[in-house]
Amino acid sequence: MSLIDFSQFVNELATLSGQAILPFFRTAMAPENKGEGVFDPVTEADRAAEAVMRQLIKRTFPSHGIVGEEFGSEGEDAECVWVLDPIDGTRGFISGLPTWGTLIGLMRGGRPAYGMMHQPFTGERFFGDGGGSFYRGPGGERRLRARRCPTLAEATIATTSPRLFDEAQRAAYERVEAGTRLARYGTDCYAYCMVAAGHVDLVIEAGLQPYDIVALVPIIEGAGGVVTTWDGGPPAGGGAIVAAGDKRLHAAALELLNA
Amino acid sequence: MSLIDFSQFVNELATLSGQAILPFFRTAMAPENKGEGVFDPVTEADRAAEAVMRQLIKRTFPSHGIVGEEFGSEGEDAECVWVLDPIDGTRGFISGLPTWGTLIGLMRGGRPAYGMMHQPFTGERFFGDGGGSFYRGPGGERRLRARRCPTLAEATIATTSPRLFDEAQRAAYERVEAGTRLARYGTDCYAYCMVAAGHVDLVIEAGLQPYDIVALVPIIEGAGGVVTTWDGGPPAGGGAIVAAGDKRLHAAALELLNA
Repeated sequence: MSLIDFSQFVNELATLSGQAILPFFRTAMAPENKGEGVFDPVTEADRAAEAVMRQLIKRTFPSHGIVGEEFGSEGEDAECVWVLDPIDGTRGFISGLPTWGTLIGLMRGGRPAYGMMHQPFTGERFFGDGGGSFYRGPGGERRLRARRCPTLAEATIATTSPRLFDEAQRAAYERVEAGTRLARYGTDCYAYCMVAAGHVDLVIEAGLQPYDIVALVPIIEGAGGVVTTWDGGPPAGGGAIVAAGDKRLHAAALELLNA
Repeated sequence: MSLIDFSQFVNELATLSGQAILPFFRTAMAPENKGEGVFDPVTEADRAAEAVMRQLIKRTFPSHGIVGEEFGSEGEDAECVWVLDPIDGTRGFISGLPTWGTLIGLMRGGRPAYGMMHQPFTGERFFGDGGGSFYRGPGGERRLRARRCPTLAEATIATTSPRLFDEAQRAAYERVEAGTRLARYGTDCYAYCMVAAGHVDLVIEAGLQPYDIVALVPIIEGAGGVVTTWDGGPPAGGGAIVAAGDKRLHAAALELLNA
């Protein structure tokens, strides 16, 4: 499978999932509760989008595995495994905000190899293969490059919510945030793409699932950034994650998080 | 000046300010510092957009007053006073996120009479005159109506950042948030429009300037919502603000904020 064929296939997944999701955006919905006592909105849009992506993947690549937020895992041991989050940022989605996105990732030999974040409402696609990353949207098409930002004092930091963290993690996060120039909340997958695009320097989160991060890794790495767990390990398993546009900033953040 | 003429004029202000702002969105900028020690990003975009709006207002309505974030106040005692915030949500703007907006408000006889929130990147306009509110954007054109939500337990709450609040305010805010179903941060002007659109139920903020809220009041009220200060007073002066789509929810929030 050449890189070009592969790009085309992911674009098709993005187009189909976007068509499945958009009719539900900003319509009246009664979000169901997944867990017990925890509010975790699941929408019809989420399910419809994942179903349509799974169908196309199975038809096109029957030997590939699939891991999705809504319908679980199958063929996880395959050489190629798709990792899907049809709506990353469901809370933003059900609040009518445009900061959610569809995450389409491909693992090859256990490592994130290709990823796309698609925002069908704004018509934006951020995609990368670890070697290069690109943007296509209303602002045209361009290469994504993370920006230089060696120190916390110059950094813009983003996280979805301080409530992601347990008590110890929150104290660690706040040690980092206190040293930054600007902090932004409510960002979900968008913030990682803004690291790749050079507008945000640092994203620190916790409690992520693999499908929350796999697609974003090749986008960040392809733009020259770095993404690991808080202890510096590979990020594809999710958990506590640090993404930075500049390796020096990443090192400074890890040091403070583990102080 | 009829309502129709007036609508057209505000649309023209929005179009011109959007044209002034968009070339700066997601470009490399060195935000200047306004205050001493406080990071308050001001962009060239902010200034260019306010300048173009002031010019058109002065040429079209020389007797009107203008209050703007960037270039101060003139003719504040006039019967008609325009209240402008070219980029509400500058932190979102410089982080590359699409959650900022241009706020264009008109005070008449000391009360907010007409308002528009324009998001030029997504191509969305939310506008109202207190009697009715409307949306125009990629999703078409429609009337805005706040949704029923009588109790905190059913409510989605939004605020830009927990850091807006001083210590006492933060404790009060957290009493309210703890009782809600879902909380969302990083929202700026967008959240108030989502109250008008029926996707968010409650916005609680503090430290607002008049230009942060005046344009939003007629949009929320025109959609059937209510917006006041935390002590139930008129909101046009800014400060600590509560906006709700349902009067009963607004009352419940005021009670907890002032407990």
